[in-house]
Amino acid sequence: MLNYFSSDFKLGILGGGQLGKMMLYETRKLDIQTHVIDPNPEAPCRISCNYFEQGDLMDYETVLNFGRKVDVLTFEIEGVNVDALRKLKEEGIKTYPSAETLEKIQNKGVQKKFYLDHQIPTAGFEIFGSKEELIKAIEEGKRTFPFVWKSTTGGYDGKGVAVIKAKSDLEEIQDAECIAEEMIPFKNELAVIVARNPSGEVKTYPVVEMEFHPTANQVEYVICPARIDSEVAEKARNLAKKVSEAFKHVGLLAVEMFQTKEDDILVNEVAPRPHNSGHYSIEASYTNQFEQHIRAILDLPLGKTESKLGGIMVNLVGDENHEGEVVYENIEKIMSMKGVTPHIYGKKITRPFRKMGHVTIVNREISEARKIAEEVKNSIKVISKK
Amino acid sequence: MLNYFSSDFKLGILGGGQLGKMMLYETRKLDIQTHVIDPNPEAPCRISCNYFEQGDLMDYETVLNFGRKVDVLTFEIEGVNVDALRKLKEEGIKTYPSAETLEKIQNKGVQKKFYLDHQIPTAGFEIFGSKEELIKAIEEGKRTFPFVWKSTTGGYDGKGVAVIKAKSDLEEIQDAECIAEEMIPFKNELAVIVARNPSGEVKTYPVVEMEFHPTANQVEYVICPARIDSEVAEKARNLAKKVSEAFKHVGLLAVEMFQTKEDDILVNEVAPRPHNSGHYSIEASYTNQFEQHIRAILDLPLGKTESKLGGIMVNLVGDENHEGEVVYENIEKIMSMKGVTPHIYGKKITRPFRKMGHVTIVNREISEARKIAEEVKNSIKVISKK
Repeated sequence: MLNYFSSDFKLGILGGGQLGKMMLYETRKLDIQTHVIDPNPEAPCRISCNYFEQGDLMDYETVLNFGRKVDVLTFEIEGVNVDALRKLKEEGIKTYPSAETLEKIQNKGVQKKFYLDHQIPTAGFEIFGSKEELIKAIEEGKRTFPFVWKSTTGGYDGKGVAVIKAKSDLEEIQDAECIAEEMIPFKNELAVIVARNPSGEVKTYPVVEMEFHPTANQVEYVICPARIDSEVAEKARNLAKKVSEAFKHVGLLAVEMFQTKEDDILVNEVAPRPHNSGHYSIEASYTNQFEQHIRAILDLPLGKTESKLGGIMVNLVGDENHEGEVVYENIEKIMSMKGVTPHIYGKKITRPFRKMGHVTIVNREISEARKIAEEVKNSIKVISKK
Repeated sequence: MLNYFSSDFKLGILGGGQLGKMMLYETRKLDIQTHVIDPNPEAPCRISCNYFEQGDLMDYETVLNFGRKVDVLTFEIEGVNVDALRKLKEEGIKTYPSAETLEKIQNKGVQKKFYLDHQIPTAGFEIFGSKEELIKAIEEGKRTFPFVWKSTTGGYDGKGVAVIKAKSDLEEIQDAECIAEEMIPFKNELAVIVARNPSGEVKTYPVVEMEFHPTANQVEYVICPARIDSEVAEKARNLAKKVSEAFKHVGLLAVEMFQTKEDDILVNEVAPRPHNSGHYSIEASYTNQFEQHIRAILDLPLGKTESKLGGIMVNLVGDENHEGEVVYENIEKIMSMKGVTPHIYGKKITRPFRKMGHVTIVNREISEARKIAEEVKNSIKVISKK
């Protein structure tokens, strides 16, 4: 067992955004030294780490040189240079999650094939090398509408995904390698976070549920525990665990899933890091996801994943009509509500739909938390200075 | 309402120790800019604040110049220059807690007289200008044994306090202005943290209980809620509130109290800041004490003080036989226990009895938490490298 605490041990983090920032609360709590690199010199992680460096995460030499200065390397964003991770591993620097896992996840086509190879249920799909190939398949009648189009790489926060119901919907999509996926008429969108350490200890968090806005196709609330049958929840947790073990994943793996009308669970996609669907855990869980990620990659015992209370998370995104220096209107109003904790990521400029923070609502009763969450959502606005 | 979040607003903190460090978790969470000053260039707050300065907190010019750079000034240690705070207030810089409160608290004689003036029950006492005056009173038979000797200034963590049972016990004490206090045969030592904002909103946390080691006269566990009758708890919370209001205190006030054999509550002493007896709140409360302090001094609505779960805090102090580079022996063992969170303050060198960190244990059942707390205490050791 290495001595991580108040020692010379150094943890490197690729990426310095809000996920890294919340990870740093935990490294500070345990007094673990950190090095962070991000292309943005004003990244949220700039303070709170022991050493900050500006640099391009996709550049081989940059990542290699950064990684050589640390003992264990992790990331808070998938868009990093995998070859550099592989080289660092050869040089004896532990990189968790591994280059092998990341590589499979970075490309959605490879990820989907991995599920097939490992008997992991997922929506049916076809891979096309380009937009042209996809159009050809449609014209030849081999591909019928509707389907979900996904770019195999670079998709993030709704980008690189589109529902295609007719040929005209294809006009908007980019020319890239892509998959066409069967549309699943799902009852619920669920997620489970799995933690796994190098010794093979595995723990799953309770199932969370994404509640969508009744008309706009947008997640409004992430709710833990999901309001589903315990058998379905059990099935989802077991499936998530199976996915983590198939990847021999080390660190956190957020597994997004569909609950079909027949209560089957299909894996949608995964993220190999702390995830938006786990933010509730900071206030609601015995061990929050960021501490758990640190425990996992350092091969420490995993913490308990049970919840102290019910938790609901609401994202704070920039109002669509505002751009400029940010103001959190009515933040003092939501701070007077029971069990409400705002998290402000530290971005000075708001833009339409930019992720600026999130709010957690905890309560012994999830139905009560849900009511308060709605009040929060109706009160706070992320706008710009007049 | 000022715009504190991701804005140009600056909060200054005098002192950069562990209390400041834990306060910075909250300013980071809310993205409030902070300036910190501490005499130690390696202070735990050095990273995580926006601006760090090395300087003497008792020096008038240093504190004045530091304070002029911020919008609101607070402190995490009582030993700061009060005249500078007064001057800053005149110049329009908000200083919370106020110079007036701090001044009363810095001197234990003044503090005790304040309680008398405000009908706040406290143990009987006499003030002596010097050790010589005290000895004279004893020799003249005006002062009888036993009593508790306390230096009026500079006492901290058991320093400046002694139980005097015979004349020979006086040899050890320093020559200073002092008080001789009646010895209270108490049933329990209790504490209540009160938060009050400039608008006059007041909230008290539940009563905590200090459980002492059965033989060594040392606090082993801080337990929330205290295992006392609800009427006694109610009385303690009301008394703590009365103390905060008497001081017109802004910020947190930790009120330490005795529960006598007759279930009377006497105020022992207060600390005008986040306090060791409130550390449990990070994991156990809806609003932890550090966030509450920030809310209070910025005149934001106070957060709920209720507990999510029962909480117990164990201090991590340096083993008496070790001095040198610190090692937290068996930390991985306690991290595998349910609801256990270690906090490492970031001091590289351990010394006998030095406060190096603390551990919180949360559980739905306080009796279960108490069992786990004992396992924690019996497992972890703060030692030095071999």
